[in-house]
Amino acid sequence: MSSFGERLEAVFRERGHVCLGIDPHPFLLAEWGLPDTAEGAREFSLRAVEAAAGAVGIVKPQVAFFERFGSAGYAALERVLVDARDAGLLVIADVKRGDVGSTVAAYGQAWLTTGSPLEADAMTVSAFQGVGSLSDVVTLAEGNDKGLFILAATSNPESAETQTAVRDRGHFAGSTVAAGIVSEVDTLNSATDHLGSIGVVIGATVDAADYGITADQLLSTPILAPGFGEQGATLSHLPELYGEAAHNVIANVGRGVLRAGPDDVRSVLRRHVDELTKALVR
Amino acid sequence: MSSFGERLEAVFRERGHVCLGIDPHPFLLAEWGLPDTAEGAREFSLRAVEAAAGAVGIVKPQVAFFERFGSAGYAALERVLVDARDAGLLVIADVKRGDVGSTVAAYGQAWLTTGSPLEADAMTVSAFQGVGSLSDVVTLAEGNDKGLFILAATSNPESAETQTAVRDRGHFAGSTVAAGIVSEVDTLNSATDHLGSIGVVIGATVDAADYGITADQLLSTPILAPGFGEQGATLSHLPELYGEAAHNVIANVGRGVLRAGPDDVRSVLRRHVDELTKALVR
Repeated sequence: MSSFGERLEAVFRERGHVCLGIDPHPFLLAEWGLPDTAEGAREFSLRAVEAAAGAVGIVKPQVAFFERFGSAGYAALERVLVDARDAGLLVIADVKRGDVGSTVAAYGQAWLTTGSPLEADAMTVSAFQGVGSLSDVVTLAEGNDKGLFILAATSNPESAETQTAVRDRGHFAGSTVAAGIVSEVDTLNSATDHLGSIGVVIGATVDAADYGITADQLLSTPILAPGFGEQGATLSHLPELYGEAAHNVIANVGRGVLRAGPDDVRSVLRRHVDELTKALVR
Repeated sequence: MSSFGERLEAVFRERGHVCLGIDPHPFLLAEWGLPDTAEGAREFSLRAVEAAAGAVGIVKPQVAFFERFGSAGYAALERVLVDARDAGLLVIADVKRGDVGSTVAAYGQAWLTTGSPLEADAMTVSAFQGVGSLSDVVTLAEGNDKGLFILAATSNPESAETQTAVRDRGHFAGSTVAAGIVSEVDTLNSATDHLGSIGVVIGATVDAADYGITADQLLSTPILAPGFGEQGATLSHLPELYGEAAHNVIANVGRGVLRAGPDDVRSVLRRHVDELTKALVR
């Protein structure tokens, strides 16, 4: 099998840069006329997967909204993951897991092992305990042709206090927390001529320069970008927002699109893909 | 019902400061002669709960080791949580969840809602996206008489690069990331005369002074302390490690105790409780 980075390059080429975030939030279940139960979350998500399959190449289920229902929610999620991967979609499990090395490796096994009930193509992780704490899960991801997205500069305004803090020690002393993570990931991806398989999360609402992040640190790194739509960023501005690294960006759209209702998700997604593809070739 | 902080004070008084970390790690399942399956993790954990019930007042299941088995692992965990709470143990779900506000609130609902299948007494969370991102889950915890433990200075060495970074903006500019979190939590707990319900994680292997954390910021704050045993810290040194805040510390012991095997966990735990109680009254 090809690496996650290579599969992602193919998706960008063939189906564009838009990702549908699957967030079975209670308000959306209500808008879609579904119960606020594991069953409702499953129905909602299967319809979202079906709509996504004809329009985009990537989906990102938000696991918090399944975890609310305990094991029943996880059983629903397992079905959603299988359907999404069977439909040929790349699946990013948005779980933001993090812990000490041997524990975060167990999370890696859960989401990134072939044949696991929760198998996805990639997962989001947090480096609050250091990028070094993730080394076992990096090895596991690469060995299984899977991907990771490490949080760097997230889209919510409260995150700046931590992510702009300045490192006082180690290789990247003088860098912000966010820029240090980006640099460490750049090193991890330097061995391949393709797009790397270890990505970062940089929100579209963030001024990357303000965090000391530059596009030349991101030329081999996939970037997962939340923040479009309801959070305020505009898809057609993506090339200006990410500069030279724009061609590595996965633009996540979620609640704003899902609000359109089950019958209109696909057409809204197609419009977004076209809009973004045009902006990227300009 | 009384607040989480009040219940924790009662546990400290009546049953001491030791917490059993329940980590169904593959190597421990093998040592206990159990299969590396959801069923094995359930058996392992139920025996650990039984041993803990006669010896300590607090247990901390590590959720990563259940998540490995998907919905079957979560079903096993649900049974473990019910048994532990029925046995009168305070249960801290070690999940280290974090996300933007409305999403981390969904994690809060999963773990801290009365009647939820995953109901625990407290959960661990990450403030990589800012302490402000956790405000909905703080409100939810306090409203439900539950507790939170926000990661501040964790026990693994790779974490220092992020946690000693110096904040550049906001109220706590000039503080380290870890000390800023401790200060924000101190403010959250200032409204009560009891021990607060919003705790922090400060590893016993960490030199808190090196992170700019002082005991006087912690006088109302519960402290969850990993790092004893195999990670290198010694229980009898706890009073020196945490100074004036030592009486607020939950000392987690896990793999080192579980290695003793199912028949000896209880006696090892009792020895640890005695050792720590003696150290705290000296």
